[in-house]
Amino acid sequence: MEHVELDDLLFDDEGLIPVIVQDADNGDVLMFAWSNREALDRTIAEGRMVYWSRSRQELWRKGDSSGHTQHWEQLRADCDGDVLLARVHQEGAACHTGERSCFHRAIS
Amino acid sequence: MEHVELDDLLFDDEGLIPVIVQDADNGDVLMFAWSNREALDRTIAEGRMVYWSRSRQELWRKGDSSGHTQHWEQLRADCDGDVLLARVHQEGAACHTGERSCFHRAIS
Repeated sequence: MEHVELDDLLFDDEGLIPVIVQDADNGDVLMFAWSNREALDRTIAEGRMVYWSRSRQELWRKGDSSGHTQHWEQLRADCDGDVLLARVHQEGAACHTGERSCFHRAIS
Repeated sequence: MEHVELDDLLFDDEGLIPVIVQDADNGDVLMFAWSNREALDRTIAEGRMVYWSRSRQELWRKGDSSGHTQHWEQLRADCDGDVLLARVHQEGAACHTGERSCFHRAIS
């Protein structure tokens, strides 16, 4: 696998970058969130996922209130460097509904 | 799995919704793209992924020029209905670089 530096990532006009969160153990896509440079720096320093909450406009240390932390195993960037894939070990449920994955609804 | 209708989805201020694309066969996350209501209608009607190209501002029928089509097996929505997960059968490479997945670079 190729390597990429944090400084090579591209953030959008609001300084954000999308993050796809995948279960490192079984490959399930767990959730989708946004990050920024500060959240990424903390994610790397702490070994667990820290996002930027667009609704609350603040850092969101996943699991601080729920206990459902996500320790990451690998962080990847896409070919353009403007989307991230985080492969994590999920504690409990990723979804606020209590489902393990946010993607628990099929379009019919 | 619960079910959700197309009309229940939430599109952003530009009428767009993010799409995470996952290999239905092995669970790999292949790419990330954007859709809108028209692209989604075509995706469902044609059985293959059609996106909205933000750079070209036009519908993007994945594989039309490359042959690397994506026939979807299941379309899911997240808990909030504002992100989609498409589980697809990928023909050839999802990435324009020729890699099967766009997420072939690890952050170091």
